[in-house]
Formats: sequence, C-alpha cells, structure tokens
Amino acid sequence: MASIRDVARKANVGPATVSRVLNNSGYVSEETRRKIEDAMRELNYTPNELARNLFHKKSGIIAILVPSVSHPFFAELVKCVETELYARGYKTMLCDTFREKNSEQEYLDMLNRNIVDGIITGVHSLRIEEYTKIDKPIVAFDRCLGENIPLVRVDHALGGRMAAKLLLASGCKDVIQFQGAKSVRSPSDIRHIEFERVMKENNAKVTSVELMWNRFDSEYFSEVTEQTMREHPDIDGVFGADLLAVYCMKAAIAQGRQIPGDLKLVAYDGTYVTDAVTPGITSIVQPIPLIARELAGLLHDMIEQRPIPQREKLMNVSIRYGNTTIGKN
Amino acid sequence: MASIRDVARKANVGPATVSRVLNNSGYVSEETRRKIEDAMRELNYTPNELARNLFHKKSGIIAILVPSVSHPFFAELVKCVETELYARGYKTMLCDTFREKNSEQEYLDMLNRNIVDGIITGVHSLRIEEYTKIDKPIVAFDRCLGENIPLVRVDHALGGRMAAKLLLASGCKDVIQFQGAKSVRSPSDIRHIEFERVMKENNAKVTSVELMWNRFDSEYFSEVTEQTMREHPDIDGVFGADLLAVYCMKAAIAQGRQIPGDLKLVAYDGTYVTDAVTPGITSIVQPIPLIARELAGLLHDMIEQRPIPQREKLMNVSIRYGNTTIGKN
Repeated sequence: MASIRDVARKANVGPATVSRVLNNSGYVSEETRRKIEDAMRELNYTPNELARNLFHKKSGIIAILVPSVSHPFFAELVKCVETELYARGYKTMLCDTFREKNSEQEYLDMLNRNIVDGIITGVHSLRIEEYTKIDKPIVAFDRCLGENIPLVRVDHALGGRMAAKLLLASGCKDVIQFQGAKSVRSPSDIRHIEFERVMKENNAKVTSVELMWNRFDSEYFSEVTEQTMREHPDIDGVFGADLLAVYCMKAAIAQGRQIPGDLKLVAYDGTYVTDAVTPGITSIVQPIPLIARELAGLLHDMIEQRPIPQREKLMNVSIRYGNTTIGKN
Repeated sequence: MASIRDVARKANVGPATVSRVLNNSGYVSEETRRKIEDAMRELNYTPNELARNLFHKKSGIIAILVPSVSHPFFAELVKCVETELYARGYKTMLCDTFREKNSEQEYLDMLNRNIVDGIITGVHSLRIEEYTKIDKPIVAFDRCLGENIPLVRVDHALGGRMAAKLLLASGCKDVIQFQGAKSVRSPSDIRHIEFERVMKENNAKVTSVELMWNRFDSEYFSEVTEQTMREHPDIDGVFGADLLAVYCMKAAIAQGRQIPGDLKLVAYDGTYVTDAVTPGITSIVQPIPLIARELAGLLHDMIEQRPIPQREKLMNVSIRYGNTTIGKN
C-alpha cells in the first residue's frame, strides 16, 4: 500500500505538504493540491483514517444507547437517529443495554477515550452520578441526567391528560394503567400521575400495574397482560404503552370481550403495531422523527461547541384515532 | 491528562515498557507490570484508544448493514447480532441503507480504511462486483456475494414447501403470495418458487404480487395489501412476510371476511408481530438468534484469520401454529 512518502515523492513535494492537504490545514497552492491529489489517485493511496482521527481527536462516531432495539419504539428511534446523524456526517454505534448494566459504563469510558465523539442515551440503568462526572457531549432522551446534559422528551403531562379524556369520553369508569418499574425515575412517569389525577377527578377508578424493570420482550408483555386481564374482569378501559395495549387487546378478545364495546384502549407511543392490529388502537403519538432530529442536532451542536439555548426540549404529542375508543374528544 | 511519559516516570521505567504493558506485547516482569498499573491508576491515565487501534490496525468495530432497522425482522436481527458481537469483544456500527445506495459503498470504504474490522451485510443494493474487489472480512445474510464471502441463510426451499402444505391442508385452492422486487435476486426467492411449485402440483391457483424495491414501511404494506385484497376478493389463502400477512389480515377483516373461515394466512419470518395480532398468524419462523450467532461467529473467525469450513451455512426453519390455518399438517 502506498504511503504518504510515496505520494510526496510522486508529487515532488515534502511529506508535510501532503499532510496539510490530507488534514485540510495550512496553505497549499491550488496547483500543488492538484498534483498531490493526482498522485494519490495514481498510487491508489487511501489515507489511514485512524491516524487522521488521532490527529483531529475526533472519530466521527456517535453512540446511541437504548434498552432494546427490537422494541418497536426504539427500533424506530434508532432508525431516525441514524438517519439524522448520517446527514450530519456521523456514523452510528449501537448499544443495546438490555443484557447488562455494565455496557452503559463501557460506552461512557469510550467517550472519555475519544472512540466516540458523543452519546445519545435513552436508557435507565446507571446512576446519574456516573454521568455528571463526564464533561463531554451527551444528550438524553426521556431521562434527567443533571444540569449539564440536555434532555429531549415529549410533553408527558399532556399525553396523560389526553389519554384520560379519551377514556372518559368513551364512558370508562374503572380502568387499568401499566407503568414502568417504580425503582426507576423517568420524566415519562408524569403521564401516569396526570392520567390518574384526571380520571379520579372525574370519579373513575384507576388501578396501576407496575411492570418489571428492563423487560421489553413480547413474552413478558403477553404474560403480564393476560394475567392482568384475568385478575380484573370488570375493567372497562386500559392505558399502556403500545405493545401492552396490543397484548391486552389480544387477551381481552381471547376472553370473549368485545372491543370497544366491553373494553376501551388507549396506547402510548403510537408506533405501527397499534395501527397494524384490528381494531386499530387509539394512540397518543410521540413524534419519533422530530425527537430524533432534536437529539442529533443538540449533540452535533455540543460537539461543535456551539451554545445550547435550552437544557430541556419539550415536544408535542398528538392523538391518532383508532377504533378502541368512542367518539372524538 | 496524564501521558504515557508521566506513567513511565512515576513507575520509574521507560515509556517503551509502559507501551509493552498497554499493548500486551513483549516481556514485562509481573512486578514491573504491577508498578505500571498502579501508576496508571494513581494518575488516572486512560490510554488513547485511537493510538492503540492505530498500532494494532484493529478498531474493534463491526458494521452491520440492514435495509431498515425499524422493520421487526431486522430490528430483532440487529439486536441479536449486537449481543453476539459484544460477547466477542466488538462494538456494533449500524447502517440503515434505506435512505440511499451510496451508504453501502461508504461502509465498504470504511472497511478498506480500517475504521471497521468487518461487515455483516443484509442489504441488496450495490452490485456484487463492488464486493468481490474487497479482500477483507465480510459475511452476508441472505445474499450471494461471490465465492469469497460466506453466506448465512435459512432453508428457504423448505420454508416455501411448508407454507404451501399448510395452506393446502387448510383447503386453499386460490392463493396469493407476496414476493420481493424481481430486479433484486436473493436466495430467499427460492421460497416463492417452491411455494408455487407445490401449490400448482396440487391444482391450486397461485397469483404472485411483486413488491416495490426497498419499501419496508407500514404505509406501503397497508396500501399494497388493501389494494390486493380489493382486487382479489375470491382468494382463499395468503403467503407473505410478517407485516404483509398482518396487514392482509387487517384488510380482509375490514372487508368483512372471517379468519380463518374465508381466508387462511401463513406468514414468513415469525417475529412477534404475527403473534401479537388476533388471531395469531401461523408462521414459518426464521431462527433469528441462531442466524445472528452464525453471522457474528463467522465474521470473528475471518477477522482472526481462522479457516472457514463452509461458504454457505444453511439454517432450519420451523412452524409456529397460529389460528389462521386449519389443522396441523
């Protein structure tokens, strides 16, 4: 393989001049630049990218950490983030933290060691203190990681209220909501608080079913919804994340209940799975493409050392009407 | 930040000795090694990973290329591959080639420039010639990329026969199968050939609906299935990949057809979506975790320059019975 010295010899310049062209630094005349580029082509010279990264202290790689990439919400988020990062000249490294807590720490170490230029994290395993130690570009999705780490999330309070109003307008009086493990605090908890508040204000009963930590597999969703529907035969409404709503509906239909006659459902996230089932499930939709754009844009700004105007970026949610609620609120 | 020289000074050794410890090369006595490690800890020294990669000519990064990571099959495949690569000490770089053909070429260039140590590709955009030019570790999923690139795939011929027999045993006489764009050749085409052969052998009519190239979004699936079901009101069976089967069922139910009374369905892939719907769809299951293990293992062997015993690894498919076919064949 041709070296930088071979290129210099062929172009009849010094190696330092070739280096200036490679790194786009310092003055090189147009004519010399063209001579060097011609020599590179003729010699089929490929610059050693690792050496260049070492010089620039940038790898051009950004890591995205998600709890489970096979979960439809995170699959879509990862897809959109990858697209947004690619448009900004970055490659995406993917870390699925499902398997163990350690991997999250490992990626923070990689940030410290300049293997990645930044991190987008949507996981809830490490303690916040591990993050506050680091003074490098990190952006969080749906997680408070201290004052220095920008947060992107939807307006969960609004989402919770919307869901409650949809079920109330459908006549629900006794509903179940599925919520994440209480051992983990997340801004998305607000939706459950608001949901419960609005339902109770309107004299409806709310039972909260707490989910296990870090379980995103359909076996678990199937199991927990079947058990819940068996133990609560009298409920008339369900509020839960997409796959929970989908599997709840499946369990209810298996028990011979009519949808939406006997049971109303509102899903949270609004990925394709709530649309692919019959009946389509009325959903509170998180705008994943816009969330991805914010995450990538914020991180890019931090890497470029541009000022970040606001520490928290709140996105809107919307309703996609399906056939699991009655009327339009 | 502490440098390798600071560590050497503190441990009272030469920088070359520290370098030997860092790179795990050459002889260093246990005592000296411990002194150096202590000095690193005291100085909070983090080795510059880029410099080490440069030395070893390995990045520890593997790229996986898929047509769309939000598609449930590829989401699960990426998750499993990431897990398998992580277990072998690699980080996973993700490339979603949905947006443009160029990105595939870009990742091949990255392999040439040592940014990634290897590539697992499951996409069908670049011409094979681009691959045959490269003498570096590449493993293909479901794609023939010439003699030098190992291929992992399931036994699609068996899968096609299984699907045909399931529909025949359910009494189908007039069926539709959805198949990929004919402009792209893939080993998975065999399932359609075998499916059609077995159906026709048993005097059933088969209509093949060709899908557009590189469309994996649910809008498209919804559209194409609705149109197909409208144009073919008399068909009694459907064979298609997971989401096509799911949306076909949705369209059929919307038309007032009973499942499985009026229409039988067999899905190909068998991801969670065919299980989450009601009724659950009988599926030919690709063993994604085992496929991922083969892909990661083969690529690791190639990177380690171990011999690859066979150029093609054929995996088994299995049937998961749902309620969209009748009886067990």
